[in-house]
Amino acid sequence: MCRWLAYSGAPVSLEDLLFKPANSLVMQSKHSRLGATTVNGDGFGVGWYADSARPGVYRSTEPAWNDRNLRELSAVARSPRVFAHIRASTGSAVQQTNCHPFRHDNWLWMHNGLLTDFVAMKRDLAMAVDTGLFPQIEGSTDSEMLFFLALTFGLRDDPPTAVARAVGLVEEVARRRGIADPVQMTVATTDGTTTWAFRYSSAGSSRSLFHSTDVAVLRKQYPDNPDIHELSDDARLVVSEPLGDLKGAWREVPESSCVTVHGAGEELRPFEPVAT
Amino acid sequence: MCRWLAYSGAPVSLEDLLFKPANSLVMQSKHSRLGATTVNGDGFGVGWYADSARPGVYRSTEPAWNDRNLRELSAVARSPRVFAHIRASTGSAVQQTNCHPFRHDNWLWMHNGLLTDFVAMKRDLAMAVDTGLFPQIEGSTDSEMLFFLALTFGLRDDPPTAVARAVGLVEEVARRRGIADPVQMTVATTDGTTTWAFRYSSAGSSRSLFHSTDVAVLRKQYPDNPDIHELSDDARLVVSEPLGDLKGAWREVPESSCVTVHGAGEELRPFEPVAT
Amino acid sequence: MCRWLAYSGAPVSLEDLLFKPANSLVMQSKHSRLGATTVNGDGFGVGWYADSARPGVYRSTEPAWNDRNLRELSAVARSPRVFAHIRASTGSAVQQTNCHPFRHDNWLWMHNGLLTDFVAMKRDLAMAVDTGLFPQIEGSTDSEMLFFLALTFGLRDDPPTAVARAVGLVEEVARRRGIADPVQMTVATTDGTTTWAFRYSSAGSSRSLFHSTDVAVLRKQYPDNPDIHELSDDARLVVSEPLGDLKGAWREVPESSCVTVHGAGEELRPFEPVAT
Amino acid sequence: MCRWLAYSGAPVSLEDLLFKPANSLVMQSKHSRLGATTVNGDGFGVGWYADSARPGVYRSTEPAWNDRNLRELSAVARSPRVFAHIRASTGSAVQQTNCHPFRHDNWLWMHNGLLTDFVAMKRDLAMAVDTGLFPQIEGSTDSEMLFFLALTFGLRDDPPTAVARAVGLVEEVARRRGIADPVQMTVATTDGTTTWAFRYSSAGSSRSLFHSTDVAVLRKQYPDNPDIHELSDDARLVVSEPLGDLKGAWREVPESSCVTVHGAGEELRPFEPVAT
Repeated sequence: MCRWLAYSGAPVSLEDLLFKPANSLVMQSKHSRLGATTVNGDGFGVGWYADSARPGVYRSTEPAWNDRNLRELSAVARSPRVFAHIRASTGSAVQQTNCHPFRHDNWLWMHNGLLTDFVAMKRDLAMAVDTGLFPQIEGSTDSEMLFFLALTFGLRDDPPTAVARAVGLVEEVARRRGIADPVQMTVATTDGTTTWAFRYSSAGSSRSLFHSTDVAVLRKQYPDNPDIHELSDDARLVVSEPLGDLKGAWREVPESSCVTVHGAGEELRPFEPVAT
Repeated sequence: MCRWLAYSGAPVSLEDLLFKPANSLVMQSKHSRLGATTVNGDGFGVGWYADSARPGVYRSTEPAWNDRNLRELSAVARSPRVFAHIRASTGSAVQQTNCHPFRHDNWLWMHNGLLTDFVAMKRDLAMAVDTGLFPQIEGSTDSEMLFFLALTFGLRDDPPTAVARAVGLVEEVARRRGIADPVQMTVATTDGTTTWAFRYSSAGSSRSLFHSTDVAVLRKQYPDNPDIHELSDDARLVVSEPLGDLKGAWREVPESSCVTVHGAGEELRPFEPVAT
Repeated sequence: MCRWLAYSGAPVSLEDLLFKPANSLVMQSKHSRLGATTVNGDGFGVGWYADSARPGVYRSTEPAWNDRNLRELSAVARSPRVFAHIRASTGSAVQQTNCHPFRHDNWLWMHNGLLTDFVAMKRDLAMAVDTGLFPQIEGSTDSEMLFFLALTFGLRDDPPTAVARAVGLVEEVARRRGIADPVQMTVATTDGTTTWAFRYSSAGSSRSLFHSTDVAVLRKQYPDNPDIHELSDDARLVVSEPLGDLKGAWREVPESSCVTVHGAGEELRPFEPVAT
Repeated sequence: MCRWLAYSGAPVSLEDLLFKPANSLVMQSKHSRLGATTVNGDGFGVGWYADSARPGVYRSTEPAWNDRNLRELSAVARSPRVFAHIRASTGSAVQQTNCHPFRHDNWLWMHNGLLTDFVAMKRDLAMAVDTGLFPQIEGSTDSEMLFFLALTFGLRDDPPTAVARAVGLVEEVARRRGIADPVQMTVATTDGTTTWAFRYSSAGSSRSLFHSTDVAVLRKQYPDNPDIHELSDDARLVVSEPLGDLKGAWREVPESSCVTVHGAGEELRPFEPVAT
């Protein structure tokens, strides 16, 4: 059920980010190590910020490992903030409008996991979406619905609270419909300057999520590792699974928590759904 | 804004139906004569009935004139009832789930036209869809929404009334939102044994629609025309525009009317929206 | 590096053949058990004979597990002779013209394996292709080149000899170029009435290949197994890997041999390249 | 049969170049004014130079007017040298490897036109391609073959002579095969610093080709036209058809000639095939 990465720091080449690492995201599209599915070949997407506040988004229904245009784009594009996602559909159609990241103005959103029995909850959730936002839902996934609920609940003003309320609503609807453990998610969202990443599941056993440790520290630890030396001190990665085996480079994000990445700063706080 | 054809009669090869005529539907995909747009290259679809009650549906986002698999399928498939549609998008994404014909159980539905300012009406219309049917909406088009409204209003029991009520609802919602001339449509729908075709627009100037005249009569008129001799006496076509220039072969369907085709029988009746 | 199946017998539904079995070919596209690669997601193709001598061919660059049109086609198409192939590219582009089976008039051809260092041999092999056939090469794969060499060497008159000479030429060119173990192949080809399957590799360690055993015998062995009862007595399958775990249902094709399937008859003979 | 544009000058946004003009190339993909075909919907491609000597190339089989990723890429990419091409196939498959521009190291090549009866000449031409280059031919078009012939004849050292010899060879092969008027072409090629554009046809009636006039002069002529003011003094465009109706902005390239664009400098010389 999908894998993703969120990068922030000095501008990097998308190629270095998506293709070079030993366990790169493109590699994971064919052979994920920690994913619920080993193959994530049902499309993919990349969102990156360049000169304007609105990020570029490249989404394709091909497996990432096959997409020549992704290689071309990656070879020429550099960005200080990149979201990338490889998809393993849980049933909805394989089409660009169902590929992550989803974009709204300057915001990006991507999700790994699912809403249990989404079909049974879909109408109730759709009804809860802000009437002005509703027509902008383009695809048919639970992930996009969750994004629009978060937007409805104030994502642009207070992301952690908005996501908590969105998840709270889903769990409330699930209760009414008698659906157990409705939410399984790791989610990343950004406004272009800050990244918020969430790890949560109603059942308390969420998909894997990791964030990179302080590059300056790593550099001292591995004075001879070139990969690290190319990274800026404020470089930060949040990923579904580590991109390599470098010991100490990755720290697991605990269950039911939210990581905020702003510049070199990182803040970890507990995450809890809020009943609406 | 799209072109379509609906055939019923003795089983025909899809190739004869879609590729052979002088002004075939595939030809129209690149050079429509009467269409609101000359190019209908934003995907296409074919629905055909074979052994089971549920029709097969082949839909693609490629222009029909380019799709090799359509040629292959057409060369081997024969069917007594075929719906075919070429799309010119009025804004929604070019993806298979937005291609016509749409299918529900044994029913097919295709539409040429648009709902004016659909974005402004989308939520109200979505709310009116039967709660059980709502999650089955896969795409983002006004055409599919109209189908689900018709299903909601009893398409399976009384198609003309169901379509009249669906259109009536759209016009009522449009009135509330101050949208003028909301409906522009030629629609065809079938349960596999009868075909209903509608020509209607709120403004009273609808897209072109024609139906074929009695084959037996034509055959007497053109004793030497091979095309006609291959057709069965009960062969009937309803089309956005004539497939050829044979004089007397095509009769225009009048404004605000519904044609019912059952076997060799044809019935023309006025069509009027019903306020809900 | 690809998986394939070749069916002959009483007409079967493509759906039963491609989707129903426990280890169906579509299943193998995501999780092959015996393949050189577990994922065969770089396109696929199906060739089937219907009313005409020329088979229909449906080829797509999508992973087979995702292609909705394949499901639609499979649900309505029945055929007494079916070739199906799922691709794992060894480098050449993922495009329809590189998908198997390849077709020439009434002939089909599919290949699992590769020609080592094909790039270095490509021109020499291309030069050996019959000048009239050369322009009909549409793709860029070693597999299609092997097909055209076999056609050049008389595939239509004596398939085993033509394939032996094609392989012989490749090995001769490889020798000249100093390429070791140039050929790795399981190949199936048919003229619509007989199927020839080959298992061979220069190194003597070929990809897996199996053929089904006598259905009548199996039926006695498993009186209660419905799968078998649906099959006709002359039903024969040649496959890259067994479609299920039924003991005794599958027999491995030995190294360096050719299986000929005609009606219920089966003939196994040794296969050896012929120097040209 | 295709339309293209070649830009050089100060870095411009691909969006400004491909989407903004009144008769933009994307517009021409649906409604070409001067093309041999009005619809150029059989794929497209963009090549652009960024930081490295090797240009990026984005090619797609979708009609340019539909490709969302092209819009995304165009919105973020800026380049001082851009080649863009929209395709109308003359028979060869619609696949990325048949889309222009074609790339070899730091070189780009695109072609509008065709080689008459290419099928009959294909093998002879393929044989003339440098043996080292031959395996790098990926597609099946006459245009790519012409590129590889030019590379074979020294494109990297002396483009005008190399193209003259390539065309000369085609005409010689055509003579041998009794093919009349074999070459119809406007071709553009660049090494990343200079652009060479050719207009030639064996019959002496070539596809349309224009180049932009001196921007500084235009700016004096139209002091109030914003489009022009955004352009740098050394901005130069060579196009299949004018991007707008600005009088004096476009000058037709004469029959049988070659335009060389280097910086603000332009040189027009006669072009004549060279017998090999």
